[in-house]
Parts: sequence; C-alpha cells; structure tokens
Amino acid sequence: VKLEDLGEFQFIDRIAPGCVIGDPKRIIQGIGDDAAVVVAPDGCQLLTTDMLVERVHFVRGSITPRRLGYKALAVNLADIAAMGGTPHDAYVSLAIPRDMKVEELDQFYDGAKELAHSCGVNLLGGDTAVSEQDLCISIVVTGSAPPDEVLYRSGARVGDRIVVTGTLGDSAGGLEVLRTKTALPESISAALIEAHHAPALYLEEARILASSGLAHSGIDLSDGLSSDLRHICSRSGVGAVIDAASIPLSEELKALCSAVGKDPIHLALSGGEDYRLMATVDPAGVGRLSREIGAATGRNLYDIGEIVPGDEIVVRQADGATKALTGRGWDHFHSPGTTARD
Amino acid sequence: VKLEDLGEFQFIDRIAPGCVIGDPKRIIQGIGDDAAVVVAPDGCQLLTTDMLVERVHFVRGSITPRRLGYKALAVNLADIAAMGGTPHDAYVSLAIPRDMKVEELDQFYDGAKELAHSCGVNLLGGDTAVSEQDLCISIVVTGSAPPDEVLYRSGARVGDRIVVTGTLGDSAGGLEVLRTKTALPESISAALIEAHHAPALYLEEARILASSGLAHSGIDLSDGLSSDLRHICSRSGVGAVIDAASIPLSEELKALCSAVGKDPIHLALSGGEDYRLMATVDPAGVGRLSREIGAATGRNLYDIGEIVPGDEIVVRQADGATKALTGRGWDHFHSPGTTARD
Repeated sequence: VKLEDLGEFQFIDRIAPGCVIGDPKRIIQGIGDDAAVVVAPDGCQLLTTDMLVERVHFVRGSITPRRLGYKALAVNLADIAAMGGTPHDAYVSLAIPRDMKVEELDQFYDGAKELAHSCGVNLLGGDTAVSEQDLCISIVVTGSAPPDEVLYRSGARVGDRIVVTGTLGDSAGGLEVLRTKTALPESISAALIEAHHAPALYLEEARILASSGLAHSGIDLSDGLSSDLRHICSRSGVGAVIDAASIPLSEELKALCSAVGKDPIHLALSGGEDYRLMATVDPAGVGRLSREIGAATGRNLYDIGEIVPGDEIVVRQADGATKALTGRGWDHFHSPGTTARD
Repeated sequence: VKLEDLGEFQFIDRIAPGCVIGDPKRIIQGIGDDAAVVVAPDGCQLLTTDMLVERVHFVRGSITPRRLGYKALAVNLADIAAMGGTPHDAYVSLAIPRDMKVEELDQFYDGAKELAHSCGVNLLGGDTAVSEQDLCISIVVTGSAPPDEVLYRSGARVGDRIVVTGTLGDSAGGLEVLRTKTALPESISAALIEAHHAPALYLEEARILASSGLAHSGIDLSDGLSSDLRHICSRSGVGAVIDAASIPLSEELKALCSAVGKDPIHLALSGGEDYRLMATVDPAGVGRLSREIGAATGRNLYDIGEIVPGDEIVVRQADGATKALTGRGWDHFHSPGTTARD
C-alpha cells in the first residue's frame, strides 16, 4: 500500500491503536487533535509538533531564512492556540543541508526569536543534524490551559455558530502570486505573500474563546477550511453549513482573483496555511465574543456558518442553493502534481 | 561561514543567546544539555528531541524499519536517562519519502511501540509529512525527575570517578561490520549489529544513580566517549583521566578488531552511538552503586577513570604513559568523508 493511496488521516488512524501504554488517566488527548493534552498538577499540559520540509512545504530561495524561522514557529503556536492554550516553550530541530551558510541559520533563528519574543515563548533546545539534500525543520511547542478550558475538535454541538478569526484564502493567494508572478500593485502582492510567509497569530483570541465557556470546539486552519472543518465534524459527529457570502475575504485576495480569473471563495475554502483560528460557539455568545475580542485585540470574529445534524458539510450560496463541500483541502499524501506549496 | 567549519557545538553556542524569554525562574536548563529542564509543581519536567536523517544517521535498506523505529525512540529515551529522569510520553514526526510503503511504516511504528511498551512510555502524537528525498525522523520524549535528582553535564567534581553502564565501541563495531562485510562468526556480527541497531537502555541505572545523591553529572554516550566526556569537562570546568585498561570491551568487539587489525580502545573512545550512560560519582560511592545496580538489573557499572583539575582529558595506558584525548567523536558538521554512519 502506498501512502498517497491511504492519505494522511487514514494513516494516523492506522498507527493510533496501542499508543497509550502508561497510566491512561494521565492522557486526556493523544494522537488526533492539534496538540496532545496531558494532566498536570496545575492544569493541562499541551504539546504539539509540526514539520516543514523543503520542496514540500517551502522552496528555499523563495522565502527568506528569517521568514522561514518565523513561520516554522508560528504554525506550531497556532496549534496551541487552537486548543485554547498559552504557549510556553519551543524546541527547534533542523536537518541542515551542507550548502546552507551559518549566516542563513542565524537569520532563521532571528526570525524564530522575533516571534518567540512577541509571544513570551522560550527557545529551550532542539537538535541539529546534517542533511544530504533537503532542509527539514521540526519544531515542538509546549503550553498549558485550565482543564475545563481546552478546545477539542470533538466538542462541536448542533446549533453552534462556526467562527473564524480572520480573512481566508490570503495564504493561498500569496502562493499563487509567488508561483504565477502575476503583475499586481506592489502593496497587494506584498500583503498576500506576507500572509503566506508570516501568518498572523491569535493567541489572545484563543484564550478569550476558551475561557468564555461559550466555545465548544476549535482547530487552526492549516490544511484549508474544507479539510479542517471536516476534522471537527467527523470527530464531533455533526455536519455543517457554511454561508459563502459570510466568508471574510481581503481586498487583496479579491484583487488577485479578479486579475487571474479565480474564485476567491474557492481559495478561501480549499487553500491551506491561513492559520486562522476556527471555533464553534454557542449561538447566543457570538455577539459577546466579538465585542470582547474587538476590545482586546482590535480584530474581528467572523460568523461563517452553523453546525447541523448529520455528517455533510455544505456551502450555501448567496441565492440559497447549497453545494456539498467534498474537497479535502491539503492532505500531505494526497498531494497534487506540484511538489511545493511555496 | 560554513557549518562544517564552525562545528555543531560552536553553532549551538551561537544560537543560544536570547532564547530564555519568558519567566527565567521556570527554566532550570535550556539549550546545552541532554534535555531541557523546566520547573513543574510536582518536580522537574524534562524534554528532549533527536533527529535521525537518512544517509546521515542510517541507510534505508541496511536497517529494518522495525529496528529503525526502535532505535529512533531509544536514542531519545537515553537522553532522558542521562538526566536521571523517568520518561513518560513520546511524539514521533516523520518526513516520509513517496516510495516508502505503508507496511514499512507499520513496522517502524511496531518497533517504536515495542520499546515504548517495555518502558511504559506513551506515543501521544507527532506529525507526518511527505519528503521528496530522504526519510527524516524527529522524536520528542518528555519525562520528569525530582528537582534535586537531575544529573547535569555541569556537575562533575574533581575526584569523582567516571563510570559507564556498559561496554564501549560495540555500536561502532557493528557499523564496521555493516560497512566492510568482514567475515566473522554469525553470533559475533549479529551481536555487534544489534548493538548498533537496538542500543540497550539504562533507565533503571539512571534512577539509581540520580536518586543516590552520589552522582554529580551525567550524559549518554551518543557522539563517542571522547566527545561526550569533553561536554562534561567543559561544562564543569574540570579535566579527566581515563584508564585505558579499565574501559569495558566486549568479546565480540575484540574479535572484530583482531580480524580487521583495529584497536578496540580507539573504537571505544571515538565510536559513537553506544548510548551507555556515563556519570561522574563520589569515589566513596562507586562500590555501593555497583552493588545496587547489579542487584536491581544484573548489569555492571564500570569505573573507567577520574575527574581531575584543569581542562585536559588524557588516556592513561597500561604502562602508565598518558596521551591527550583530542578526538571529538562524532560532530554532525565536522563529519568525515563518509555520508552515513550506518
């Protein structure tokens, strides 16, 4: 059996049995969410780890080492945020090609340290090894949360509103700009590429959502809304309706899409690496959460749909017609013909 | 500047500044030991992470996937043992070449689970990504220890005896057998290859040493005694004398070395990946520790030398002559011409 026939998520289901070996009461969440959750005397401990591989997740030379260091840490912090946690410590491991200069590595660490400083996260270790070919980055972030304030993928309830913390599709738009070199006003391409290389983080939003008692599930949008919402729905045993007209789209993405003749809603639904937070929340609480988040961060919470009974995810168009959302977003082993996302 | 000119350990010193960003009182040990040590309400939390990269640390095809899964976890558990800790949870991340079959990955996880079961360690997550070329394995292990029982590299005291928990050089011998295909009796080559592919672990020895109050520093022998003892000496501000005649050598290593005309002491001093525990202990306590370890595990503790003032590491030959130990064992960026250790 080849991995690409099985897919990443079936592979995870295949390896998960027999993995909880010690005291099972310690383990609240093992394999299968954005982070593992373990009981600690003062709350829950979270741990997440994400790999970025050259020629799969990025092309060296089309992202600066500094941005790469920033992004590699950011995608891990987004997983802690998705669980409603506060990140504490990061560990950076690199398999380094022989042709990489120390100065490039300095810049990589400068980028990671820049983000770590802005979040109060320590860099406490990792590993460095040589690589014969590709740069491989593996980062671990630990965090914590009060036990009753962790957001799992499995908690969505029928009637919940589906909310996201930012515009969708910008990262995919940035990738499109890098790939096609579409001529656009500089400020537009720069904003989209920045969304792709230096995703915004929503740590404060995460804590507001998780501590409110109004959010029932959460995930970060790494693989694309269509794929990530499916994780929430399948773990929670529910379906979802997304209102196409409610999906927040940036002016920059709209400008790109009108220049290249693409549908921005398609990029918003299936494009990966936005790293916005998605949560499902009590319908009576959306207004209060929006106001609290606005007051604390100046940013918005966008209501894009509803959790419904069943197991289907549909998109409702402006004219009321619905379409089943079958796209799987980004699955690492079901990849398209391209070899790099960046 | 190229990494190979700088070396792994100078590179680590270069990136370490500015890494403790949050509350420094939480951080007992950041970058620079076998594991990071963080204050927890019920003791110390340990976290270590090690990468194994194809064509650098192993050659696919010359180690079975099952043994590779076992070894990749073992080298991380050895780091927790080196700190005197008890391992709890492991996280396995893989960048997987497209040609790897799911069945090989099943075997990889079977090997990791086999070892995890024997140590009571949970597998709680990780990441899976695709790789265009090499298999890259990045594993994290968390553990814990009472605060006053953690063994750091920096604790060695003048007068301490240097002890190791097993014979040295066997892993390098196994690598030699695999590389040169030297004709040896099957039981001898099998034992050496097994030492290279499935290193023994010393978790019980680690806890006995750490809880005795008699051990002052510890490290696992991953890069080779000459390199790993240098870490202890430089962090502790001491020197060391190794008695060549006291270095424990297996009969299998001696048989190999006599067949290929190599000095087993050389392999024992500079060969990497033995993953024995090395500690420096109160000279009055060696006998008691040996007896306790023998009673608990049936294995030996070998006294191979002494911590002395200064910063030199010398090897004392049987005739009393001494030689400075300048070899650095395995440094990932100062690698010899070969591209693989396996």
